[in-house]
Amino acid sequence: MNAYSPPLQDMRFVLSELSDLALVSALPETEALTDPELLEPILEQAARFAREVLAPLNASGDREGAHWSDGAVRMPQGFRQAWDEFMLAGWNNIALPAEHGGQGLPILLCTALQEMFTSANKAFCYGTELTEFAVKALIAAASDAQKQAWLPHLVSGRWSATMNLTEPQAGSDVGALRARAMPAHDGSWRLFGQKIFISYGEHDLTENILHLVLARLPGAPEGSAGVSLFAVPRQLPDGSRNDVRCTGIEHKLGNHASPTCTLVYGGEGEGATGWLVGREHKGLQAMFVMVNSARLTVGQEGTAMSERAYQQALAYARERVQGRPVGGGSPVPIIRHPDVRRMLLTMRCQTEAMRAVAYLLGASRDLAARHPDAEVRRSREAFLNLMIPVFKGWATETAVEVTSMSIQVHGGVGYVEESGVSQPLRDVRVATIYEGTTSIQAHDLVERKLVRDGGAALREWLARVHGTLQRLDAVDAPELVPVRERLCTAVAALQRGCEHVFANFATRPASVLGGSVPLLRLFGLVAGGWQMANAALAAHRLLNAGSGDPTFLTAKIDSARFYALHLLPQASGLAEVACSGGDVVMAMAEEAF
Amino acid sequence: MNAYSPPLQDMRFVLSELSDLALVSALPETEALTDPELLEPILEQAARFAREVLAPLNASGDREGAHWSDGAVRMPQGFRQAWDEFMLAGWNNIALPAEHGGQGLPILLCTALQEMFTSANKAFCYGTELTEFAVKALIAAASDAQKQAWLPHLVSGRWSATMNLTEPQAGSDVGALRARAMPAHDGSWRLFGQKIFISYGEHDLTENILHLVLARLPGAPEGSAGVSLFAVPRQLPDGSRNDVRCTGIEHKLGNHASPTCTLVYGGEGEGATGWLVGREHKGLQAMFVMVNSARLTVGQEGTAMSERAYQQALAYARERVQGRPVGGGSPVPIIRHPDVRRMLLTMRCQTEAMRAVAYLLGASRDLAARHPDAEVRRSREAFLNLMIPVFKGWATETAVEVTSMSIQVHGGVGYVEESGVSQPLRDVRVATIYEGTTSIQAHDLVERKLVRDGGAALREWLARVHGTLQRLDAVDAPELVPVRERLCTAVAALQRGCEHVFANFATRPASVLGGSVPLLRLFGLVAGGWQMANAALAAHRLLNAGSGDPTFLTAKIDSARFYALHLLPQASGLAEVACSGGDVVMAMAEEAF
Repeated sequence: MNAYSPPLQDMRFVLSELSDLALVSALPETEALTDPELLEPILEQAARFAREVLAPLNASGDREGAHWSDGAVRMPQGFRQAWDEFMLAGWNNIALPAEHGGQGLPILLCTALQEMFTSANKAFCYGTELTEFAVKALIAAASDAQKQAWLPHLVSGRWSATMNLTEPQAGSDVGALRARAMPAHDGSWRLFGQKIFISYGEHDLTENILHLVLARLPGAPEGSAGVSLFAVPRQLPDGSRNDVRCTGIEHKLGNHASPTCTLVYGGEGEGATGWLVGREHKGLQAMFVMVNSARLTVGQEGTAMSERAYQQALAYARERVQGRPVGGGSPVPIIRHPDVRRMLLTMRCQTEAMRAVAYLLGASRDLAARHPDAEVRRSREAFLNLMIPVFKGWATETAVEVTSMSIQVHGGVGYVEESGVSQPLRDVRVATIYEGTTSIQAHDLVERKLVRDGGAALREWLARVHGTLQRLDAVDAPELVPVRERLCTAVAALQRGCEHVFANFATRPASVLGGSVPLLRLFGLVAGGWQMANAALAAHRLLNAGSGDPTFLTAKIDSARFYALHLLPQASGLAEVACSGGDVVMAMAEEAF
Repeated sequence: MNAYSPPLQDMRFVLSELSDLALVSALPETEALTDPELLEPILEQAARFAREVLAPLNASGDREGAHWSDGAVRMPQGFRQAWDEFMLAGWNNIALPAEHGGQGLPILLCTALQEMFTSANKAFCYGTELTEFAVKALIAAASDAQKQAWLPHLVSGRWSATMNLTEPQAGSDVGALRARAMPAHDGSWRLFGQKIFISYGEHDLTENILHLVLARLPGAPEGSAGVSLFAVPRQLPDGSRNDVRCTGIEHKLGNHASPTCTLVYGGEGEGATGWLVGREHKGLQAMFVMVNSARLTVGQEGTAMSERAYQQALAYARERVQGRPVGGGSPVPIIRHPDVRRMLLTMRCQTEAMRAVAYLLGASRDLAARHPDAEVRRSREAFLNLMIPVFKGWATETAVEVTSMSIQVHGGVGYVEESGVSQPLRDVRVATIYEGTTSIQAHDLVERKLVRDGGAALREWLARVHGTLQRLDAVDAPELVPVRERLCTAVAALQRGCEHVFANFATRPASVLGGSVPLLRLFGLVAGGWQMANAALAAHRLLNAGSGDPTFLTAKIDSARFYALHLLPQASGLAEVACSGGDVVMAMAEEAF
């Protein structure tokens, strides 16, 4: 029941119907998306790799975990070979530009491939993704000489890379970091300090690891304005070991195969040799390229783990015979019991909604970067900025609920570790925390993406949502009536919530922030409901045209109806909390807690 | 940050203000509740035992776990001594009647003590509770000779006991069990079969274990009408080992120190010697005594784990300095950040609500069993029957969310096992499953407790809720206005949801069941909101009278306001799902999943 089967049919549907494909296909080099003879082999090969190479190492990697000993980290059995095969097949560089040795596939397509790999083995993928983020940061900020020195190794996968932000006293508040860099005579720097929670900070998969490290120069301003970015290789160009040591790894609730390292720079007194990337004190801006990519990727971990959990629950619900059907008869597979179905559909429709939002964000990245029309680039950039915190927060919080529901469908079996059922929950539980907690996302949404933007991006997106409502109004399909009604009510609730923010943030910021996570949940709920409504419209159109698989398309409409009838009704309550719940958050005296 | 401090102030408040104490104190032998000179030492001693003996073994028990080898189970270090101390202090028999060697304390008081022990060490307590359930089942169903033979050992704690229902093919559907019992020449029986998921089925804490086992006699009717109850000791009266073996224990997500055993009866060919308890084929009725107690106890695990998780999160939020306050300034403890406060208050007010409902149910058990007025007995019995599935389902589902929220408050630290933060979530995750899943509770609520009852118990309880609303109306307290308003709206939503059940269950049972878990959640939400409103009224009265600790009482009102403004707004959405969401659950074709 732990086999993973990439949901190619839904992926194709979302790629073609829900991801601005008409606009994306106007970009250069998007044939891989629009020509089925190119697209299908890519999807199939990625699916095979996910199914046959990565998925079989998921449970064993969880059981075995990464193992630390005397500064070295031994990865679980099979990971080294899978890493080499991943690199050999070029899956690591699909999203990287051709000029740096990448394949330059559209990000939209990469979003689908990444989902498969993550569903199959999240702990494995995080290492490859960190390396990809680092490459993008280096492309954006490094000098030409630095690019020549490092990028070929990273793009080939012979090296991996890390992001070093967190220190014991500097978690969500990155600006509180204390690691310091002293200038050396040769233009390089010597780094000193301790970094914690560094994913893939040490391992035995690659010849070298390039650490991207935030640190302070002597005399740097306090806070985030005094932070610079350095590249610090584990092994120096002359082959000697750099003064950076992994002093331990964390024993975690999940992600056991992803080593979470404490790294000490300069512990041997010399200082770790590193090179400044980009300008002095501008490290956060350089790192920001990674952070935005990382937030989308972590949001997609929500989709990927929800899909995996849904597949496990569905397989069990089909095979487990228990209890008689309503009205009597012989015992039946539990998928026939109404509440089991409710749980399966709750998992399924939210997974589909996350996927549909994620791929649209992937397409928006392509459009924002490469569309010839400046207005399209601007509007997609604005949409992305608005939606990154929403998607990251909503998809990961929802995934915690969806993966927990899989345990519930399995009953006692789900509580037993050998079943593999708890792993998606354990693995995804960190996704609401790393790359910015849900609180941080909600704060970002309210302050930067709504208030500072003056609501421009919001209005633009709401216009698209109202377009969907109009299309729902125009279509003659009684089965879509509840979809339109519930979405309409939910959008109005979101508008109330946002208006509350605009009216009150300047004067009562703490009160607005006290309702900001409910607002973020509402925002994600509506974004998902919008894409599910678009999915239902597309399915209805295709069914009427006699095109496509009617079983799949009818199920898509059922799924959208379920989302409307079971999920969207939360909207009014969330809006009420966002609008009326802020003040009471700060009311209780601190000593009374 | 892992110390447990029993919340005695809130416990005293709930005992005295929210638990029908005026009625309970009219019962014989309730001085322990009403005389502070008796009550305080009991609370203090239990608190000390929980804090000093049980809590220190919680994390170590989780790390070490129970260990199986060749049929034997070794408990984690310290558990044997704690068991002996628990029994010596008599904490195991506080709720048992004096005629059987118990202390006969009111169940209301026992509910508070049990909460402390469970917060301190849930895995430990489950073993003591199972023994208590078995004693009650034997008191109700066993012959005098059986009682004489077994009860003294169980009441003294020299023996423990188990409940054996589940088999691989018989989980939620107990009637599908196949274990069989063959008559022996001496009036005893020989049992054959495999039981799984048997908590404390084997361990090294006691000289003997008495297994209460459901099995079928030869020629028994199919299903639950053909199930009989047997008592099967691990060691026979002549000192020889019985033919029952523990063939393994489960490796679970949590509850590591509570051994979950597979037991094979008759594996050596002889059959395990057992004795019929109660009448042939009436085993489920006899076991039912245990099941009702067990459901309340498991619901209380929700309260207990939520309290523990809240205390951990609160301690961390007070000590962790990170980020600047809204409006600027030096970094502050994270408890000053609005969203952290929102999470803490969400955890706190729901924990208080669960506690207030649980203690009232404890009081109702006292009243249903012992009140001189038959009408009071009847009404409390009806209230209990209605509320047991509600409380079990709501408190455990809520506890999963509350304990997960503690991880969120801790950020990355919460994901690291050494912090002990994930343990409450891992331990409580099974509580929505064992002793009847949430689906089973919701089915029980809808079919038996609402429809079969004709709504009588519901009407009676709603009259009490409307009494609270009237008292809120009559009181001159602007701060209670939102409490009244939100509770009023939520009660109306619950009434809509229940009317939908009455109107549709006979004709469309599958549709009603498809919305039954949302209805159960709504029911629990309102029950909790009702008790929080009662708490606010009591706090307001005491404050006006200048009686009690004003800091505590003011916080109680703040907490009730938070519950009203942040939790009760879910009610309308839940009612909408319960009323309109049933049909879509069964709409999707099974093959389309």
